[in-house]
Amino acid sequence: MVNLPDKNGREAILKVHTRNVPLASDVNLQEIASTTPGLSGADIKNLVNEAALLAAKKEKDNISQKDFMDALEKIILGPERSLIISKEDRERIAYHESGHAILGLVVPGADPVNRVTIVPRGQALGITYQRPVSDRYNYTESYLRARIIGMLGGRTAEEIIYGNKTIGAENDIEQATNHARMMVTRWGMSDALGMVQLVESNNPYLNGMGGSGRREFSEETAKLIDQEVYKIINECHQEANILLNEYRMELNSLAAALMDKETLDEKEIFLVTGLMPAHELENKKVLV
Amino acid sequence: MVNLPDKNGREAILKVHTRNVPLASDVNLQEIASTTPGLSGADIKNLVNEAALLAAKKEKDNISQKDFMDALEKIILGPERSLIISKEDRERIAYHESGHAILGLVVPGADPVNRVTIVPRGQALGITYQRPVSDRYNYTESYLRARIIGMLGGRTAEEIIYGNKTIGAENDIEQATNHARMMVTRWGMSDALGMVQLVESNNPYLNGMGGSGRREFSEETAKLIDQEVYKIINECHQEANILLNEYRMELNSLAAALMDKETLDEKEIFLVTGLMPAHELENKKVLV
Amino acid sequence: MVNLPDKNGREAILKVHTRNVPLASDVNLQEIASTTPGLSGADIKNLVNEAALLAAKKEKDNISQKDFMDALEKIILGPERSLIISKEDRERIAYHESGHAILGLVVPGADPVNRVTIVPRGQALGITYQRPVSDRYNYTESYLRARIIGMLGGRTAEEIIYGNKTIGAENDIEQATNHARMMVTRWGMSDALGMVQLVESNNPYLNGMGGSGRREFSEETAKLIDQEVYKIINECHQEANILLNEYRMELNSLAAALMDKETLDEKEIFLVTGLMPAHELENKKVLV
Amino acid sequence: MVNLPDKNGREAILKVHTRNVPLASDVNLQEIASTTPGLSGADIKNLVNEAALLAAKKEKDNISQKDFMDALEKIILGPERSLIISKEDRERIAYHESGHAILGLVVPGADPVNRVTIVPRGQALGITYQRPVSDRYNYTESYLRARIIGMLGGRTAEEIIYGNKTIGAENDIEQATNHARMMVTRWGMSDALGMVQLVESNNPYLNGMGGSGRREFSEETAKLIDQEVYKIINECHQEANILLNEYRMELNSLAAALMDKETLDEKEIFLVTGLMPAHELENKKVLV
Amino acid sequence: MVNLPDKNGREAILKVHTRNVPLASDVNLQEIASTTPGLSGADIKNLVNEAALLAAKKEKDNISQKDFMDALEKIILGPERSLIISKEDRERIAYHESGHAILGLVVPGADPVNRVTIVPRGQALGITYQRPVSDRYNYTESYLRARIIGMLGGRTAEEIIYGNKTIGAENDIEQATNHARMMVTRWGMSDALGMVQLVESNNPYLNGMGGSGRREFSEETAKLIDQEVYKIINECHQEANILLNEYRMELNSLAAALMDKETLDEKEIFLVTGLMPAHELENKKVLV
Amino acid sequence: MVNLPDKNGREAILKVHTRNVPLASDVNLQEIASTTPGLSGADIKNLVNEAALLAAKKEKDNISQKDFMDALEKIILGPERSLIISKEDRERIAYHESGHAILGLVVPGADPVNRVTIVPRGQALGITYQRPVSDRYNYTESYLRARIIGMLGGRTAEEIIYGNKTIGAENDIEQATNHARMMVTRWGMSDALGMVQLVESNNPYLNGMGGSGRREFSEETAKLIDQEVYKIINECHQEANILLNEYRMELNSLAAALMDKETLDEKEIFLVTGLMPAHELENKKVLV
Repeated sequence: MVNLPDKNGREAILKVHTRNVPLASDVNLQEIASTTPGLSGADIKNLVNEAALLAAKKEKDNISQKDFMDALEKIILGPERSLIISKEDRERIAYHESGHAILGLVVPGADPVNRVTIVPRGQALGITYQRPVSDRYNYTESYLRARIIGMLGGRTAEEIIYGNKTIGAENDIEQATNHARMMVTRWGMSDALGMVQLVESNNPYLNGMGGSGRREFSEETAKLIDQEVYKIINECHQEANILLNEYRMELNSLAAALMDKETLDEKEIFLVTGLMPAHELENKKVLV
Repeated sequence: MVNLPDKNGREAILKVHTRNVPLASDVNLQEIASTTPGLSGADIKNLVNEAALLAAKKEKDNISQKDFMDALEKIILGPERSLIISKEDRERIAYHESGHAILGLVVPGADPVNRVTIVPRGQALGITYQRPVSDRYNYTESYLRARIIGMLGGRTAEEIIYGNKTIGAENDIEQATNHARMMVTRWGMSDALGMVQLVESNNPYLNGMGGSGRREFSEETAKLIDQEVYKIINECHQEANILLNEYRMELNSLAAALMDKETLDEKEIFLVTGLMPAHELENKKVLV
Repeated sequence: MVNLPDKNGREAILKVHTRNVPLASDVNLQEIASTTPGLSGADIKNLVNEAALLAAKKEKDNISQKDFMDALEKIILGPERSLIISKEDRERIAYHESGHAILGLVVPGADPVNRVTIVPRGQALGITYQRPVSDRYNYTESYLRARIIGMLGGRTAEEIIYGNKTIGAENDIEQATNHARMMVTRWGMSDALGMVQLVESNNPYLNGMGGSGRREFSEETAKLIDQEVYKIINECHQEANILLNEYRMELNSLAAALMDKETLDEKEIFLVTGLMPAHELENKKVLV
Repeated sequence: MVNLPDKNGREAILKVHTRNVPLASDVNLQEIASTTPGLSGADIKNLVNEAALLAAKKEKDNISQKDFMDALEKIILGPERSLIISKEDRERIAYHESGHAILGLVVPGADPVNRVTIVPRGQALGITYQRPVSDRYNYTESYLRARIIGMLGGRTAEEIIYGNKTIGAENDIEQATNHARMMVTRWGMSDALGMVQLVESNNPYLNGMGGSGRREFSEETAKLIDQEVYKIINECHQEANILLNEYRMELNSLAAALMDKETLDEKEIFLVTGLMPAHELENKKVLV
Repeated sequence: MVNLPDKNGREAILKVHTRNVPLASDVNLQEIASTTPGLSGADIKNLVNEAALLAAKKEKDNISQKDFMDALEKIILGPERSLIISKEDRERIAYHESGHAILGLVVPGADPVNRVTIVPRGQALGITYQRPVSDRYNYTESYLRARIIGMLGGRTAEEIIYGNKTIGAENDIEQATNHARMMVTRWGMSDALGMVQLVESNNPYLNGMGGSGRREFSEETAKLIDQEVYKIINECHQEANILLNEYRMELNSLAAALMDKETLDEKEIFLVTGLMPAHELENKKVLV
Repeated sequence: MVNLPDKNGREAILKVHTRNVPLASDVNLQEIASTTPGLSGADIKNLVNEAALLAAKKEKDNISQKDFMDALEKIILGPERSLIISKEDRERIAYHESGHAILGLVVPGADPVNRVTIVPRGQALGITYQRPVSDRYNYTESYLRARIIGMLGGRTAEEIIYGNKTIGAENDIEQATNHARMMVTRWGMSDALGMVQLVESNNPYLNGMGGSGRREFSEETAKLIDQEVYKIINECHQEANILLNEYRMELNSLAAALMDKETLDEKEIFLVTGLMPAHELENKKVLV
């Protein structure tokens, strides 16, 4: 298992590959580096090439920050698809993505929202990008809940605006459930179950001394796990509901802007909603 | 995974393949395009060829809209089979299909009924075609319930008319159950279970961060899922029953017409039943 | 999957293959065709050859209807076996088969009894043939119950006559249980479980949209399924018991005739029992 | 699957293979034929050869009935083993086998006891041979219970004589449980479970119409099966206990004779115990 | 499967292989034969060679009985390992092995204790050898309990002496549980479960008539099995505790001697503890 | 399976491989030997080479004890990684590791803490090394609990200092659960479950006489296991909490020193915290 480059490493690799490439004045390699955790050196080289191609298509003589962002989208989600989507569907998608984005701005600890779009790509009808400012190596329970709240924001926005549900939240539900399940069964974040590991890691390195190599817990414990997962999801759903009702005006503005412009970057989102980035989670020590 | 053409794409492909083909004046390529979601470019080329062959068999010098519809049936369900079906069985099949079709006309949000037939094809003894006006990319809970109600309409018609059950509803039951189960276990449409994912996707793309890669829920949750699935199915069954009793005259008329003509297209169905297409589902925003 | 010929098709194939074969005056190709659903064209050709061989063995110069029936038995169940079966065992087998046959005559909707025999063939010690008059494409709940009642008739006759049980009903029990289980779990014929599909089809065509591809129901539902299956089987067992007690004289006559002649065809069965074919199931419409 | 010869067939095969072999006057080929169900033609040829070899070893000029019986033992269980078994162990084995044998003589319907021995062969420390007089093709519930009672007779004798248990009954317990389980789950011999099939046959021929191909019953049913199996086993155990206490003198005599002679044939068993073969089960018709 | 030689056979094989080997006057081939059940002819040849090698290493001109015992240890458990074990650990191991050994001397029916050692071999830190006087072919329930009591003696001694537990009893626990489980599930030694077989044998010979080839019992039965296994283990644990408290002086003496000499043979154990071999289990007949 | 060298063996191997290598005066081969249980001869050779390389890199003319410790880290956990970790994250990691280390100093019986570091290596963000003074061959229940308490110390420190949880304890939770589960299911350390083995060993040597080769226990037992595992974990968690609150000053000092120096060896830890090594567990005999 090769370790992927961290933020500094990615910035260094970006510098190498953009040495002989004309960059627009707005290009911020540090920001690109911080938006691309998980990318290998080869991925970053590919990113620069794609960005150059996009700029060339538009017959520009240098590459802008937006070209890099568009190239990143293409690499991760595939090329844009031109689907005929009804106005009603587009509006619903706009509200769905706006639900994710607004929560990304108002839930303390949420990762910054870099971009939101209702241009279909691959299987996705809309996308909200959220990337941490710096690479993270440790997640707090509050941060995980902030992520779950954000994931449930798409469906919650639809519920608030239309009063009904669609299948559009399928992936959000899956990811939120996976997070909640890990919190309960591997990360010891449920008081009811304590610091007991209930599902095994797939990591072969962890089969250390004493492990039985088999999963076996009782029906009673399975029931407790389900209850705790349900509890986390429902609390986050309620939190999403409270917040989106509170920020309904901003939700409307952002959805309207998306209907109009299709894609908004971080600054445009701030402008449209009048919101600022979410507060970081306080990591204060407890006073004795 | 290649993305299939959308409605516009299909219409464009139809235009290409019918360039050198004599079309009757009633042919409406846009309608054919909207009736054929899921077909690839190759499928559409095949459709045109089959329609031309059918027209040639009847020694016509151009291809009519009906030829396209017949060709579509053949491609999807295989060629017609000439089975000796007793008059009693034919009548029952006519009522079964009419049950589907009537509900396709009266349940708000149901996909338009393009055609209904009691000519056996492949394994099917009768078929009711329903296709959306435009490609759909997102399904609401109400739409899914409209589909389930329609699926249960065949059996419900038999129960109303004959007071008993046959095995003819096997596939309908299977599809309705699958829909209800997905609503409950993946689409977060059961309040009792909340926005929790309970069965895993087969989609390899969704095995994102944090997933345990294994399904494990408690017996208690399994029971709740069963109850919620049962509830959806039974509510839809009751709705089908209420509606078909309300539209029993139209049901009788349509079954009689099917006994007489075997196949009816959309306009003939309207004529025979005096019904109009179902209302679309309202996608209204909730007033604050 | 090639579609097998229907009754008309089989009669046509029979005509082709008997063109150059001397047939006795009693041969009724239409009847043979109706007794052979499920046979392919090749099977039918084989049937004619076997019948000719049987006639040749008896040094007859033409083939009789009985030769066709004997050939059919041989093709389906293998050649006769000459086992030394004790008189007691023969009598019990005669009553067992008579139990099936009598119920085939008196349960409304039962398929006609074409033949009954206590000559062992393959693994079977006796056989009761029942074939529908015409190919069936749809089964009502009443018809399925008629079949189950008939299947349980062998054991029930033994219980009535001897007051005890043997293992001879093993296959009957298996088939009856399979029917009942399908009624409950796939055909929506249990009110307690509603129109919910509980076991998956093996048919790959039915894995349509929305199916999770996995079976998972709760212990509670499993219990309900078991109860409903048990209920169907027990009701049918009781019905078989009531009817065979009612027709005990006819049961005795048929068993005695079987002890005497070993094999009886439809007409001989009518003669011996004085019974007529079962009433067809009424398929009446419900009056409004 | 080739059908094995029945008793007549076996006698005919014996006659063929003994044509050129000198037989003692006590040889009864019909009896040998009835003691060898399940043997193929090749097995029977081998039996004659082994018997001839045994006679040759003893430098006899003809083959006696005992030679055939010894040859049969060798073919089925392997050659004798000379193990040093303590006097105590030998006595216990003698009582164990006598328990089987006495019940084979006094339980109505039990298969005749052809031979009993405490000479070890293969894995067995002692053997009681029981073979039906004629080939059986159908088993009654009473016969099955007679077999189970006999199987449990070895352990029961040990319990009566020594007041404790050994592992020597392991195979008996396994076979008795298998019989009881089949009675309950496949042969419809438990009123609590009715004529419902609960485990599937391994026979590929039986996967007829309608079977789901999967076993699935509820915990409730599993519990009921266990109770019914336990009930049959315990009733048979009690019956064995009652009978062996009743025939304790004969049990003692037979065990003593076994300690003395090691092997006894049918006639010797009668002589030693003063018992006659078990009554056949009455197969009487119920009077109306 | 070749049958292994019994005690007589092993003695004969020993005689053959020691023909040309100088034996010390204390060598008792009969005793060696009775200590080596389970060894094949080749194993015995190897044993003689190893004993000769050991004697040669010590530059002796003949082989003593101890050389044979040392050779046997080496063959079964691998060569000695020189581990640095702390005095505390050595004492604990000495008490653990003494616990096994004392119970081997005082529990009626226990196999004789041939040797006890705290010299590590292979994975074992200490070993207590117990071998039957003669080959056994049948085990009584009392003998099995005597074995389990002995197995639990190591842990029990530690509990008595140190008042706490170590992982050193892992293998003892596993073997004791396996014995108890077999008693309950295959050997019919639990009155609560009766003579019912609950787990299948792995022996392919036992898949006789009527077996379903599948294991399936209810949760209720699983619970009963667990209770019965727990009961046997706990009763034996208590018995071990009572006996080791009663013989605590002898336990201390033996542990001290082991600390001193590391290995003691049967006679030395008698000398150190003042105990005699355990009484044999009485195999008395019940008086009527 | 080759047996690995014990402490003496490792020291001897170290002496061989350092014969021609210049060692600093602080090098203590005995200490290195006692810190490296589980290493093979080849591993130890590699260790010496790596230490020499590290010394060479620093252009030193001899190898110090620290070089050996650094080499050991590299061999076991892979090379250091230079990650940009935020100050907040570094502090949290420092407290996490300090939690492990302090408990390693204050829990009686805990293995000595050789080193603690917040330099990331491989997947680990920080490491606390604890190695026994001598090779251990037997673990007491108290020692196992001491280990579990130490494992839970990282999370507990975070809870005390920050009042919240992170995913950083994932591996600690897994290892602690494995230990607790083994105590309950294989080592007979739960009075509720007694000396019953509940999961099978993977060790092929242990499948001795009588084992069924299959794991099967009831739901009731599964529940009991879960309760007992939960109880051990929670008791240890509480103990960790009590101790770290008691030693909070030392915890703060150690975390601060780690923030400052990144890595501390045993002596530095003593210096910074003012603590001495943990008491050994008393292995006293119970007085009678």
